[in-house]
Amino acid sequence: MKELLRRKRDGAQWTEAEIVQFVEGVTNGDVTDAQCAAFLMAACINDLTVDETASLTLAMMRNGTRLERGISSRLAVDKHSTGGVGDKVSLLLSPLAIACGLAVPMISGRGLGHTGGTVDKLESVLGLKMALSMDESKQLLREHHGFMSAATAEIAPADRRLYSLRDATGTVENVGLITASILSKKMCEGLDGLVMDVKVGKGAFMKTLDEAQRLGTSIASVAKAAGLPCTVVYTSMDTPLGQSVGNWVEMVEAEEALASYEHADPRLRRVTECLVTEMLLLANVATTETAAHAMVRSAWTSGAAHREFHAMISRQGGDWEGTLRDAQRKTVSHEVVAESSGVITVDPMAVALAVMSAGGGRLRDGDTIDPYVGVRFVLQSGDSVKPGDALAVVSGSSVEGATELQNALKRAIQIGDPKNIMPDIIDLTRPE
Amino acid sequence: MKELLRRKRDGAQWTEAEIVQFVEGVTNGDVTDAQCAAFLMAACINDLTVDETASLTLAMMRNGTRLERGISSRLAVDKHSTGGVGDKVSLLLSPLAIACGLAVPMISGRGLGHTGGTVDKLESVLGLKMALSMDESKQLLREHHGFMSAATAEIAPADRRLYSLRDATGTVENVGLITASILSKKMCEGLDGLVMDVKVGKGAFMKTLDEAQRLGTSIASVAKAAGLPCTVVYTSMDTPLGQSVGNWVEMVEAEEALASYEHADPRLRRVTECLVTEMLLLANVATTETAAHAMVRSAWTSGAAHREFHAMISRQGGDWEGTLRDAQRKTVSHEVVAESSGVITVDPMAVALAVMSAGGGRLRDGDTIDPYVGVRFVLQSGDSVKPGDALAVVSGSSVEGATELQNALKRAIQIGDPKNIMPDIIDLTRPE
Repeated sequence: MKELLRRKRDGAQWTEAEIVQFVEGVTNGDVTDAQCAAFLMAACINDLTVDETASLTLAMMRNGTRLERGISSRLAVDKHSTGGVGDKVSLLLSPLAIACGLAVPMISGRGLGHTGGTVDKLESVLGLKMALSMDESKQLLREHHGFMSAATAEIAPADRRLYSLRDATGTVENVGLITASILSKKMCEGLDGLVMDVKVGKGAFMKTLDEAQRLGTSIASVAKAAGLPCTVVYTSMDTPLGQSVGNWVEMVEAEEALASYEHADPRLRRVTECLVTEMLLLANVATTETAAHAMVRSAWTSGAAHREFHAMISRQGGDWEGTLRDAQRKTVSHEVVAESSGVITVDPMAVALAVMSAGGGRLRDGDTIDPYVGVRFVLQSGDSVKPGDALAVVSGSSVEGATELQNALKRAIQIGDPKNIMPDIIDLTRPE
Repeated sequence: MKELLRRKRDGAQWTEAEIVQFVEGVTNGDVTDAQCAAFLMAACINDLTVDETASLTLAMMRNGTRLERGISSRLAVDKHSTGGVGDKVSLLLSPLAIACGLAVPMISGRGLGHTGGTVDKLESVLGLKMALSMDESKQLLREHHGFMSAATAEIAPADRRLYSLRDATGTVENVGLITASILSKKMCEGLDGLVMDVKVGKGAFMKTLDEAQRLGTSIASVAKAAGLPCTVVYTSMDTPLGQSVGNWVEMVEAEEALASYEHADPRLRRVTECLVTEMLLLANVATTETAAHAMVRSAWTSGAAHREFHAMISRQGGDWEGTLRDAQRKTVSHEVVAESSGVITVDPMAVALAVMSAGGGRLRDGDTIDPYVGVRFVLQSGDSVKPGDALAVVSGSSVEGATELQNALKRAIQIGDPKNIMPDIIDLTRPE
């Protein structure tokens, strides 16, 4: 191991066999924390090649439990997002894709830091079981072409260990390490294709298109080397996506959006439709973009996806009506109103931090979450306001929490001159 | 901390205050093993500047117990060697320098890996106490101008922790880290000057003069930046130094060499005289090299250094005569004889590993040592032999150990064509 680290330090490439050996040691504990960190730092400074990243991805995937391909009779395609504020796309996309004839084995993470986690959103539904066993996941996938579950410690355990060391050692921002971490987990789903949603902007991990494309290109190359067809879509995250930020409020927005295409947030609609369209194209369920897009639109407007949404929740024990009643009984709401005239700009980071501080997110691993803390925007970035206009409604389980959130949100919404707004879908790269 | 590591990763320099903060965290445990390792790897790849290395040296020195300057009425000068095979110079140098009017506060390390430790050699003398308290060390220094002690956990604890992580993380071979490790510990002795013996060759850490000079230059620059006058001497280590390798056998060689200048090994004599001469020049005890050299020679030939040697051992409880008797009673010896004709070449690494494997050294921290395992060479590299000539005498506390050592030593002594031999003293740099 020390010889391997010395070589990585000196800029040499590791062979596939050496990476397999390293990942094995990371999994079984033979490689110490210090050795993991030395590897991570060397990888950050000297970079990993595409081949090394692909080997690392595959080794981390194989070193744990995972789903094989072909469990459902349909092709399995999933989407992964690099994380944004108000990004509830998965909640709509999964029923849409299943309604269009795909299988979607969705293993998600919990939120940590400023981005919300799909698991946390789903768990705001009373009774909804996200801690599925492998057998339960397989059965749902076989019989219903989809499930929604939380990642467990058995999935890509080496990635889990390296990931937990990266923050403290200043080795987060490396494209190869990020790529391997994302793909190793996603590939445990036994996918036939993957659509990557790389978020760009103030509320995203990647602040500029340039950075985002560096990551996107790496993911595309490594997925190709690892044999996974992958389309990369770059979408804007300069302002929250959709009309809500929080756990239960985002579930409600997703449900209402699926119930009524016309009333759904236009940007959320465009991003979701684009991503599902790409999923269908990857699986060859449709052969042209126009045909694929028409299928998505039809699954949405016909109510098929909405029915699938509720079916999925019920299959995993979720009580939608009960949660609606519980939320109504427990939630305290306040309105945030404009105090001056101008065009509003919603700072996604400030919103995310406000929701997190009020108990709607997790500052540290293991923190508990208040599912009813959230924001519903009445107006969005680019809208004009005058004093007294309602900007948003904040809610939480306690009066203090809601008041604190109301104050924080005021600071997150600036009123002034209009700002340039990025297009919703910035760019897109399909596999060759 | 993670922000600091991120900056080091990106090639930025740390300020003195940041290094002080880091070292503080390494000492009190706030900095994790993984963070230490991330720093070490970043330092290896992106290198430390002279200023950073000096700050690291001083911070590691100050973060533990140490001797202040001026405890003895004399100027305190010590020597440090990068480690060689058969390097018993310290055992002669310390009494010689004290006999010439210097103070020598000698805190040494135990041997680990192929190089022997001065502490292990001294501890082969029955009763000799090397675990001195700070108060005992100070008293000996004040009253007798010298002591010999083992480094404790309280001396430069941050260096101790980083040092213990470097091997496993492949971050040993970095000139800045090596410099800071050496100087932080040496500067805890409260020195007025330091002579560095940088060993070069097959039996040394630095295999080529080029590598050795890179380390020597770094040590000289950092010592200067840290305010410590330092002379760097480059000496050859292509073959063992002197006529013995082992713990007690090296003590005996040192004692006999001090007892009789004429019978001492010529190379050991030259290296020792050169280093003590430089110590005297650093302290201005003599103003010219010729005068300094004459003082050393006189302290040696007059028997003053030999008397000081025994006085030092007695002061710390050592029983020289008793050990001689104990060794004679317990030791089994075998002769190693030549099996062909030619010129011999002694491979220092093979000798060191043979002695270590037979129990005379430490493969792992905490291993116990058989003090009587050792080799006395009858002939040395460059000497011509014919079959049946005695090459060396090996000894140990057990018949099996001595036989094993005998076989290993045969392989360590090659008989063939003469090889080029480096000069004993290769180069020398005095402070400006």
